[in-house]
Amino acid sequence: MYTIGICDTTFSRVDMASAAVKILKKSLPSSRVVQYTVPGVKDLPVACLRLFDQGCDIVMAFGWVGKMPIDKVCGHEASTSIQQVQLITHKHILEVFVHEDEDKNEKKVKQIAVNRAEKHALNAVALLKGQTGLSLNAGKGIRQGKENVGSIK
Amino acid sequence: MYTIGICDTTFSRVDMASAAVKILKKSLPSSRVVQYTVPGVKDLPVACLRLFDQGCDIVMAFGWVGKMPIDKVCGHEASTSIQQVQLITHKHILEVFVHEDEDKNEKKVKQIAVNRAEKHALNAVALLKGQTGLSLNAGKGIRQGKENVGSIK
Amino acid sequence: MYTIGICDTTFSRVDMASAAVKILKKSLPSSRVVQYTVPGVKDLPVACLRLFDQGCDIVMAFGWVGKMPIDKVCGHEASTSIQQVQLITHKHILEVFVHEDEDKNEKKVKQIAVNRAEKHALNAVALLKGQTGLSLNAGKGIRQGKENVGSIK
Amino acid sequence: MYTIGICDTTFSRVDMASAAVKILKKSLPSSRVVQYTVPGVKDLPVACLRLFDQGCDIVMAFGWVGKMPIDKVCGHEASTSIQQVQLITHKHILEVFVHEDEDKNEKKVKQIAVNRAEKHALNAVALLKGQTGLSLNAGKGIRQGKENVGSIK
Amino acid sequence: MYTIGICDTTFSRVDMASAAVKILKKSLPSSRVVQYTVPGVKDLPVACLRLFDQGCDIVMAFGWVGKMPIDKVCGHEASTSIQQVQLITHKHILEVFVHEDEDKNEKKVKQIAVNRAEKHALNAVALLKGQTGLSLNAGKGIRQGKENVGSIK
Repeated sequence: MYTIGICDTTFSRVDMASAAVKILKKSLPSSRVVQYTVPGVKDLPVACLRLFDQGCDIVMAFGWVGKMPIDKVCGHEASTSIQQVQLITHKHILEVFVHEDEDKNEKKVKQIAVNRAEKHALNAVALLKGQTGLSLNAGKGIRQGKENVGSIK
Repeated sequence: MYTIGICDTTFSRVDMASAAVKILKKSLPSSRVVQYTVPGVKDLPVACLRLFDQGCDIVMAFGWVGKMPIDKVCGHEASTSIQQVQLITHKHILEVFVHEDEDKNEKKVKQIAVNRAEKHALNAVALLKGQTGLSLNAGKGIRQGKENVGSIK
Repeated sequence: MYTIGICDTTFSRVDMASAAVKILKKSLPSSRVVQYTVPGVKDLPVACLRLFDQGCDIVMAFGWVGKMPIDKVCGHEASTSIQQVQLITHKHILEVFVHEDEDKNEKKVKQIAVNRAEKHALNAVALLKGQTGLSLNAGKGIRQGKENVGSIK
Repeated sequence: MYTIGICDTTFSRVDMASAAVKILKKSLPSSRVVQYTVPGVKDLPVACLRLFDQGCDIVMAFGWVGKMPIDKVCGHEASTSIQQVQLITHKHILEVFVHEDEDKNEKKVKQIAVNRAEKHALNAVALLKGQTGLSLNAGKGIRQGKENVGSIK
Repeated sequence: MYTIGICDTTFSRVDMASAAVKILKKSLPSSRVVQYTVPGVKDLPVACLRLFDQGCDIVMAFGWVGKMPIDKVCGHEASTSIQQVQLITHKHILEVFVHEDEDKNEKKVKQIAVNRAEKHALNAVALLKGQTGLSLNAGKGIRQGKENVGSIK
């Protein structure tokens, strides 16, 4: 039985966690899911660390990055710190960040967010199962939130 | 009873700490508030760390970022280091930073600063109460210093 | 007998690991190669760390960086964290990153990727043999993925 | 009796340390001042750390940042590392950096440098005395190297 | 007797290490010089760390940064990590980096590289002798690779 941390924000404009949890529950029915909600992306790293303190095997961090230059800087700071949490704990954090300007159409951005959350939930499941669970797809141009682009022939 | 650190600067052009302390005292009347004032944003991280050394459960860091490119770099350096303090202590720091150029009108910038300080004080209270205190608002497009933007429908 | 970690991604559009493993097997036939596949570049650092936890003497990290500005930021975040893994473990990671826009022609990018993987596999072999294994080529303008440029006369 | 570290560079075009030491000697006559001179800003962080190893209670780091883009990057790297030294030691470093292009007039830049050194020497004294020594000026728009701008009314 | 680490790259187009070693041997005839050659700048930090593991008192890191934006990012990543090595070991690393575009004329770039290597070798000697060995030149506008610019009068 795995314990999976789900860390999300009130800043986000899409509830990505719910989309991911559905996949996790279906793929790993006996796993336990623990949620932690913070204001924004920069509050995610320490929350992820605290989730690992509670015994999580892996954490998914759902972040929403706004359109302004300062938002991009905040996203970068959060990502840098999420890297550090992984090196402190020796555990994976799947960073599921969506940038509000990935598409001009809001509904499209929501689709991207949900798709990315779902696909990364499957990645989390694969990583929990072992370090070669994704090896068959190495170099295959897999994408989350968008269509796969495939290998260069 | 919680101990809440309040870390602010002489560089700031608005006394954000007072606005936050009012909210904290009302929401958590039995909590203890400890202040630490430093020259500028880059002096905040170690001051936050020292506040945790004194037993703080959470810290609010009030920073003011000027208009020049070098000011933006300083803000980024401070934020990066505030991230690290959180990972050292496993405790939350609510970073309440205001950029002097968020609005051309000075009075508007002051309003942003006070509003952000007050809303993040409420976030601090929610985080002290537990990791799902904010979960009902996950994905709801909540903002501090500005109007909430809401979820994408 | 050396243990060599091979860390690659499903995001990549070229299977660089296979190209490198061929060289490693030929150069160090008695060495053991351990693979770890992750979704993208930002998942590489902790995977490298976990490979060292398993006893690897050196790790090759194969990353693919997309064309968009956000991709460049991700690459930078991954590189920064790969640096930290090396400082934690005191071991080398050969970072074999390819940027999708290194050439407009996709086939050329694939050639760059394979060439870089192969040449860095030889660098890994040299570094395993000792710290002066590459000293004869110090200052010689050696390149991976492209032609050597040579020393300035 | 305090021990105050003074860390400066041969790259700098102004002797800021002497200006600061005068203030320190006047404000804290019984304090001991220890100097450490390095080539450039990127050599300051480890020198600051070594000053703390020698028992310093606080350190002032005097840096000079040139006009070229690479100089700005060096300044950022030095600042980032000075942040880390503070988090390792739990002690303040007052970063007194001057950018050579803060004014087109060289003499003006020198005035900025000396003024900033002197005002930050007073900040060091205030921080040594306690964490609320500067609290009366919180939010007051205080500047070093330039005129104070004051609070927003 | 000092042990001095010399860390250089095959990517570099100039053999800076030899220029520095000549100065070191002349200035400190009884010192021991240990070399470590790596592929590129991003391989330098862990190599420097390993040189300190071998007992080096100081390390000179010779890096070559190409003309492309990605090269600048690599240089920044290497520098950031070299900072960290110094904070781990409490020892100086003299970072002797040359940017290939410091001059349009290749021969000039080579001159810059050799001059910088030689002058920083003298800085290394001065730092080994003590923390005030360079204090007479504090604020004097000293440069490596170029002419000194002097103090602002």
